[in-house]
Amino acid sequence: MAIQKPTLPKGTRDFGPLQMARRNYIFDIIKDTFKLFGYQQLETPSMENLSTLTGKYGDEGDQLLFKILNSGDYLKDVTAADLEAGASATLSKVSEKGLRYDLTVPFARYVVMNRNEISYPFKRFQIQPVWRADRPQRGRYREFYQCDADVVGTDSLVCELEILLMIKRVFAQLGLKDYAIKINNRKILTGLAEVIGSAGRESDLCVAIDKLDKIGWEKVQEELVQREFSSDAISNLNPIIDLKGSNAEKLEFLSSFLASSETGLKGVEELREVFDLIEQYGDTEDFIDFDVVLARGLSYYTGAIFEVKVNNVSIGSVSGGGRYDNLTGVFGLEGVSGVGFSFGVDRIYDVLEELDLFPSDQLKGTQVLITYFDEEGKKYGLKVLNQLRSNEIPAELYPDISKIKKQFTYADKKQIPFVIVIGSEEIEKSEVSLKNLITGNQKAMSLKQAIEEVKKGV
Amino acid sequence: MAIQKPTLPKGTRDFGPLQMARRNYIFDIIKDTFKLFGYQQLETPSMENLSTLTGKYGDEGDQLLFKILNSGDYLKDVTAADLEAGASATLSKVSEKGLRYDLTVPFARYVVMNRNEISYPFKRFQIQPVWRADRPQRGRYREFYQCDADVVGTDSLVCELEILLMIKRVFAQLGLKDYAIKINNRKILTGLAEVIGSAGRESDLCVAIDKLDKIGWEKVQEELVQREFSSDAISNLNPIIDLKGSNAEKLEFLSSFLASSETGLKGVEELREVFDLIEQYGDTEDFIDFDVVLARGLSYYTGAIFEVKVNNVSIGSVSGGGRYDNLTGVFGLEGVSGVGFSFGVDRIYDVLEELDLFPSDQLKGTQVLITYFDEEGKKYGLKVLNQLRSNEIPAELYPDISKIKKQFTYADKKQIPFVIVIGSEEIEKSEVSLKNLITGNQKAMSLKQAIEEVKKGV
Repeated sequence: MAIQKPTLPKGTRDFGPLQMARRNYIFDIIKDTFKLFGYQQLETPSMENLSTLTGKYGDEGDQLLFKILNSGDYLKDVTAADLEAGASATLSKVSEKGLRYDLTVPFARYVVMNRNEISYPFKRFQIQPVWRADRPQRGRYREFYQCDADVVGTDSLVCELEILLMIKRVFAQLGLKDYAIKINNRKILTGLAEVIGSAGRESDLCVAIDKLDKIGWEKVQEELVQREFSSDAISNLNPIIDLKGSNAEKLEFLSSFLASSETGLKGVEELREVFDLIEQYGDTEDFIDFDVVLARGLSYYTGAIFEVKVNNVSIGSVSGGGRYDNLTGVFGLEGVSGVGFSFGVDRIYDVLEELDLFPSDQLKGTQVLITYFDEEGKKYGLKVLNQLRSNEIPAELYPDISKIKKQFTYADKKQIPFVIVIGSEEIEKSEVSLKNLITGNQKAMSLKQAIEEVKKGV
Repeated sequence: MAIQKPTLPKGTRDFGPLQMARRNYIFDIIKDTFKLFGYQQLETPSMENLSTLTGKYGDEGDQLLFKILNSGDYLKDVTAADLEAGASATLSKVSEKGLRYDLTVPFARYVVMNRNEISYPFKRFQIQPVWRADRPQRGRYREFYQCDADVVGTDSLVCELEILLMIKRVFAQLGLKDYAIKINNRKILTGLAEVIGSAGRESDLCVAIDKLDKIGWEKVQEELVQREFSSDAISNLNPIIDLKGSNAEKLEFLSSFLASSETGLKGVEELREVFDLIEQYGDTEDFIDFDVVLARGLSYYTGAIFEVKVNNVSIGSVSGGGRYDNLTGVFGLEGVSGVGFSFGVDRIYDVLEELDLFPSDQLKGTQVLITYFDEEGKKYGLKVLNQLRSNEIPAELYPDISKIKKQFTYADKKQIPFVIVIGSEEIEKSEVSLKNLITGNQKAMSLKQAIEEVKKGV
């Protein structure tokens, strides 16, 4: 039998050493930031009961769940009549579990199951893969990581402040300068619907104006007409679409534009407080872009909403989130409000690659390779190896007696910055020759000196 | 409709903040060690094609694979006749993918797919969850992490040396002192089978003597009889079962006992070289226990085999591995030899818990909680917060104006060692009151002083 070459499932990827080093570079910056702000890590199982997952992501989401076949004789309850009825009718008979689709529903499930042990406000972060049976395409995978931070159990707008500060810190650490953190408030959108005479229709309004960036105001108006907004309502929106100025000026305008909407004014008030908090913290709100038409699709947001876009790259949004009033209601626990957001690591990776922002010493692996010519050199090298590692210097001894060129090639491919060469002369003098592969300099010295050189870095 | 309380799938677990901190403590020590020894990280997808997974773990393993239902109308190819034929006959029609069962097969698949890009020797480590549809019981889960390190592309016994050193380092860092690293060599077992007159039957021999620890020599003899070993063969084993002495003495004995087996002597020679390498490295082999009857089940080992047991705890083996001649043969790529091993993190966790070896400051999260009484205190607190974080001190401001007792309870539950209290007096004097929750001391001081105190630690 011919052996088939193995392949990867569609939409999944291996991460080799270089990709892992780069991904860890991103993860570490995000994790350090979450921790600096007092968020604690949570991990939930990859599998959840389908009863936990289904109905939470809309019909399309249910379709995109990866379901796990029951163990053993999974077909035992399926009848010929079931076959006629089709796949969805029999699903509950062959599958009880599915793979995590996002980190929010498992978090809500965790809060409900552990509500008495958790001390509130509960600030948690979670960095784990999720799975979606989406059609794979560039930048869209069937397995990808989400990095979420949420705080539940408080309405304090200090949390909104902290999210903005965390995004700012992560981007600063990543060296990303040209980006915009957009902020809006769902209550403002509710207010807009009210004052243009379409009270209660903010969802439809959001769906349409969410496309403003992509299709322009003319097309959005057509869509609003299709969605049966009156021409008065649509023309009432004009000043909003044209709204320019500083954040303070926009808030000022809205306090009068939304004067007849209590909810709208509440939204304005909340946003103003967030800007005040930024100032009290000692920062300035000029890294925030108040965008009155930022809508974000998810209907469970009830307060602030955020979105982060990197400018001048092919990939747009790399982070987003918002405040919700009722995270755990679907599981029967009412009144757990909170605010959260998510970093899209795969997208940040692509952005850093496009902008060439990964550090050049990214592999940061082995610092020294010990090379040698013969059995004696190997013996001597083992002692050298021991000393290097005792000094916490990542080091390797080339494992086989090989041509020195082959050993150097190994160092080169692994981006190892220093090579120690051990010949008979070095052994005789109880020295080592240390070669810096970046500068090309090579010098004989005591091992102690070599360790100091390596610690100084390249 | 009553909402059902959510539950977790059988055999899976959430890891809350304390468990995560403890798990990360273990992962970090293992990762640092792998890196110190020049291993590079790899991650593979959670899903693999079933064609990659099946047939690699024996019939029982195939049963324990979690299979993923094909997307869309997964039943479209299933006929009524298929239903009669049963689950295994239709499997290929409803499922094409499965969840990773271990890290070895995905690694082999990776090596085959990337064989031209990899520079050998390739030292990789991989820390990811695996899934097995096993019956859950104490210490056995359906989702658990494996931590593997393998080096492929070299026969050098320096790799065996390094594995022993890595295990030693990890255990030292974890504070685990009372443990035994057992080592043997499959070639010695092959030799044993030869010299007792049962050439070629080392697999059966291994299965039986593997149980020596558990059931004793008498019962093992019974099993050998059942497995049709002759009484001569069995009695020939006696000196091996009784073998005592230092590693060197055992090797000495075996060089004569196995004198008629070329393979056996090769095994002795390899082990001797490993011990020599340890000495050349500047260590002593007294942390290694040469165990002639260590067998390990997996049949693909061809050289050294290892197993690590922690003494005086309920859980035994926490790590194991060995050398193999042909990792990738199942995928049509011959001659990729290597050696690897795996840490059982869940078991190490249980051992550390049983022995109370987790560090007491394990949460190592927020260092300072800022508490206050009123709006003015909150404003002042925000500036303090900014200063703390600018000094890279993980800090939080209690988000709501609440009773001071509630704020302290929050600090307490989160194991936050310092609390800053901000009252009107502190604001007036431009100071803060810093309370050390471990010692109970509280003192007013400048923020600069407080930052120094916190940096000094508790």
